[in-house]
Amino acid sequence: MADYIESLQKLAEQFGRLQGVGRKSAMRMAFSVVEMDVSDAADFAAAIMEAKEKIHACPICGNLTDEDVCTVCNDDSRDRRIVCVVEDVKAVMSIEKVREYKGVYHVLGGVISPVNGITPDKIRFRELIERVGNDDVEEVIIATNPTPDGEVTAMYISKYLKPLGVKVTRLAYGIPVGSDLEYADEVTLGRAIEGRRDV
Amino acid sequence: MADYIESLQKLAEQFGRLQGVGRKSAMRMAFSVVEMDVSDAADFAAAIMEAKEKIHACPICGNLTDEDVCTVCNDDSRDRRIVCVVEDVKAVMSIEKVREYKGVYHVLGGVISPVNGITPDKIRFRELIERVGNDDVEEVIIATNPTPDGEVTAMYISKYLKPLGVKVTRLAYGIPVGSDLEYADEVTLGRAIEGRRDV
Repeated sequence: MADYIESLQKLAEQFGRLQGVGRKSAMRMAFSVVEMDVSDAADFAAAIMEAKEKIHACPICGNLTDEDVCTVCNDDSRDRRIVCVVEDVKAVMSIEKVREYKGVYHVLGGVISPVNGITPDKIRFRELIERVGNDDVEEVIIATNPTPDGEVTAMYISKYLKPLGVKVTRLAYGIPVGSDLEYADEVTLGRAIEGRRDV
Repeated sequence: MADYIESLQKLAEQFGRLQGVGRKSAMRMAFSVVEMDVSDAADFAAAIMEAKEKIHACPICGNLTDEDVCTVCNDDSRDRRIVCVVEDVKAVMSIEKVREYKGVYHVLGGVISPVNGITPDKIRFRELIERVGNDDVEEVIIATNPTPDGEVTAMYISKYLKPLGVKVTRLAYGIPVGSDLEYADEVTLGRAIEGRRDV
């Protein structure tokens, strides 16, 4: 039946394209929209377009922002001598939530994964090397996810950074191996930052 | 950090208002939107507005539709002498999926719930009585959910319908097909024994 309400079906398909949303959830969300006030639905649609139009990568670190540079790079109290290298913006969010880290970030936008054809030139690796070479960076904390690809990326980066005379550390294994930074709780993540080690 | 990307936060809040979407899922969905192409995001926003503008309740049965009447009421092969009374449109969808029911529907848009201040005049109860009185209805199948409120509603409806000389039935209770007796709760099992049939 509702399979034939074309506009409902189309909306459910849109929700279904979002990460982690299954078919049933997508239909439930589409129903929620139908049950909303018209003005609320308009706000929702506008929020999508606004986010899409305003949000872009920070030219310095690759973090997301709706300003010229991101809030971290724009914050003078942050220590620019410490750069935390992460896979994606979600990792930045997770670390920021701990409120313990006072350095800045470098978002790779992925990890090196030969199997999937992701070579170092497909991620923001060159930008990292340039940044460390040009800026007054003293320590690079590699906070890629504790997955095989994340590990390979960490090794690769450290191999290139060490000759530049910079201290390279890796988050301590407080993070459960094989999981994703996004799901780590604040305490575990805090311990991991605190116990970071030379690589 | 990303807490301060206002447009991302606003979008996540919009997702969070949907039924069954938690805070983390909402943020993940907002990220998905940011990662989309602009045209895809525009399609998404348009689908929301389109669904909201086009979809409305069927004037006959209360089911959702983007036509004048819903596909069930518009289908001449459906038996109008049998009316299945459901709480909401999702129930219509569930029953339609079975492809066994050939009658029509009446969507109450809720259940009687004195505790929550939902009296019979707050749901499409009067419309049901009128419909049964005017149309050539022979059987009303009450398919409200097997919850206390659903039961009360079923009782209330049957009390009003029986004097009209219409057959009133209720969906059978029992053990779900394919499940294990061990996992059936006592109430369900009790009903299953009560409703046992000759074989």
